[in-house]
Amino acid sequence: MLSLQDAPEMLHETPGDGPAARLLNVAVIGATGAVGAELVACLERRNFPVRSLKLLASPRSAGRALPFRGREVRVEALTPESFEGVDVALFSAGASISRQYVPLAAAAGCRVVDNSSAFRMDPATPLVVPEVNGRLLDERPAIVANPNCVAAIAVVALAPLHARNRILRLIGATYQSASGAGAAAMAELEAATAAHLAGEAYAPQVLPHPYAFNVFSHNAAVDPATGYNGEELKVIEEVRKIMDAPDMRVSFTCIRVPVLRAHSMALTVEFAHPVDPAEAEAWLARAPGLRLVNDHAANHYPMPNEASGVDEVLAGRVRRDLSDPSGRTLSLFLAGDQLLKGAALNAVQIAERLMS
Amino acid sequence: MLSLQDAPEMLHETPGDGPAARLLNVAVIGATGAVGAELVACLERRNFPVRSLKLLASPRSAGRALPFRGREVRVEALTPESFEGVDVALFSAGASISRQYVPLAAAAGCRVVDNSSAFRMDPATPLVVPEVNGRLLDERPAIVANPNCVAAIAVVALAPLHARNRILRLIGATYQSASGAGAAAMAELEAATAAHLAGEAYAPQVLPHPYAFNVFSHNAAVDPATGYNGEELKVIEEVRKIMDAPDMRVSFTCIRVPVLRAHSMALTVEFAHPVDPAEAEAWLARAPGLRLVNDHAANHYPMPNEASGVDEVLAGRVRRDLSDPSGRTLSLFLAGDQLLKGAALNAVQIAERLMS
Repeated sequence: MLSLQDAPEMLHETPGDGPAARLLNVAVIGATGAVGAELVACLERRNFPVRSLKLLASPRSAGRALPFRGREVRVEALTPESFEGVDVALFSAGASISRQYVPLAAAAGCRVVDNSSAFRMDPATPLVVPEVNGRLLDERPAIVANPNCVAAIAVVALAPLHARNRILRLIGATYQSASGAGAAAMAELEAATAAHLAGEAYAPQVLPHPYAFNVFSHNAAVDPATGYNGEELKVIEEVRKIMDAPDMRVSFTCIRVPVLRAHSMALTVEFAHPVDPAEAEAWLARAPGLRLVNDHAANHYPMPNEASGVDEVLAGRVRRDLSDPSGRTLSLFLAGDQLLKGAALNAVQIAERLMS
Repeated sequence: MLSLQDAPEMLHETPGDGPAARLLNVAVIGATGAVGAELVACLERRNFPVRSLKLLASPRSAGRALPFRGREVRVEALTPESFEGVDVALFSAGASISRQYVPLAAAAGCRVVDNSSAFRMDPATPLVVPEVNGRLLDERPAIVANPNCVAAIAVVALAPLHARNRILRLIGATYQSASGAGAAAMAELEAATAAHLAGEAYAPQVLPHPYAFNVFSHNAAVDPATGYNGEELKVIEEVRKIMDAPDMRVSFTCIRVPVLRAHSMALTVEFAHPVDPAEAEAWLARAPGLRLVNDHAANHYPMPNEASGVDEVLAGRVRRDLSDPSGRTLSLFLAGDQLLKGAALNAVQIAERLMS
């Protein structure tokens, strides 16, 4: 249970260091998680117009501190009263916390960017990747949902193609990192791998399967009706919603690989009309939020180690799918930082446009 | 250059420990590689009717020894005269060695099973996975090609489906282990990972990209005309040849993941007629060389750690592809030991039937 704690400790900035920007009171909920730490880092790195920063988490994590602009900001326990005077709240504490507290934050007059799955498929809530459908923020919605990490990374590459040649069908296979399961899963990957290299046993505690030098189907529960897991179903419906393409036929296989913080994916994309790979590359090269990494001679394509800590989604291996003689299908490969474009960066980008 | 060495040292067995089987003089070429060691282990484990075992490698590796049936067998340098008196030669020393020495072995009256790519697409050479097209061995060809590891693992699951409902199209994305690039690549994965965990730098020496907690497009050279790499093109053409399905439309994306010795793959399979996933599972459950691992409730599916050291290909996640409303497409996920069914085991299975 979350309980009332001491009066919030806030970091106050002198207004006026960004002359044009209105300074904002910002709250980060779930500040001590892997995404929470990146949210705070993104706010600082992107010079978000913060007047005060409130870090909120469960009572268990209260009292810890995170660095922001050269100071330590102490984490407070989240309470129903936490949102008084807050202009924008960035939630990343899981769907059940969001279901309970997002409506309270909105009722307190706070704009919310929610990184959980709680509101993503709510028809009244926009699900936004600013490069794709940022226009939805111009109506200043009270609550904006931040997509699943695979969906957010995928649409950065898919939307600029879809805008020129409608995508009819999408088949994806993912290579997902530990970070999507949180900081504890990242630590488990390192601990399990160290134990394996030392010839020692390691019993998985966070993820359901051994992770050292292993690959496994995503740990989300499997829907017995379809055989798809919860992650795959989220990606499928969220890609459609973000791209406003309810009829797009989509299938994904979501697999975890022993990588720390960037997701990769192999995509097979069928278009309405024949498509030239070189033309598609040119579209991708001009797309916002994307970097083409496509050096055939050097065999250099998107890799999670080069996507880690990088804002852009890396895209490459653009080629005509040899299994479709109609010439309407391309294959491509992406890598994107799960904690940045897949979560924190996209949330802060939403907040920037929402509050501008 | 390979040069003439001392007279071959052979391991001689007293004939008659297998009363029905004719005892054979066996040679393993490339004995000191990752696959070579598994070939010798498979010969012993499967009680192949060995009269004498000759281990051949480059002069650099000559003098090393491998265990076989409780003794150490010394490795000799491969020479043009190495095949005198040899009944069956198992080659795993790369395509250039095979192109040079396989014809010499065949001319010496030796049956050859070649694990390299040298003869795989030669129309006169059968390319065999015994569970799929072992009948080709009944004609006692002098040279039999052992397939690419991804192709060998894939067809074990695809052929029993194709036999009931013709496969029109196949799209694959692989999760390939280090072992496919040899023992040195396996050692590099461990060394690079240990260095990463210790916070130390590691410069890749075997593979072109950092391997610790990273994923990269397969290191085979990329064909500039198609954008596909050599591994993908091999898999595509070999799957068609083994399954005797020249018109099957096939596309693969081949990716290396930080796993030591088992390959995994996500397959999207389009059939000529609508297919029920439960029926396909039943076909797979009865297929030779395959084990169904498909526990939805426990989220337990094929994983490379459970496929390692295991003869069977693991298959699961059989489900209707949500992107094909016609009901003719299934998705599935496989894992198989790259050194066993992907190489050594399949070669020894070929030799067993070829020499029976």
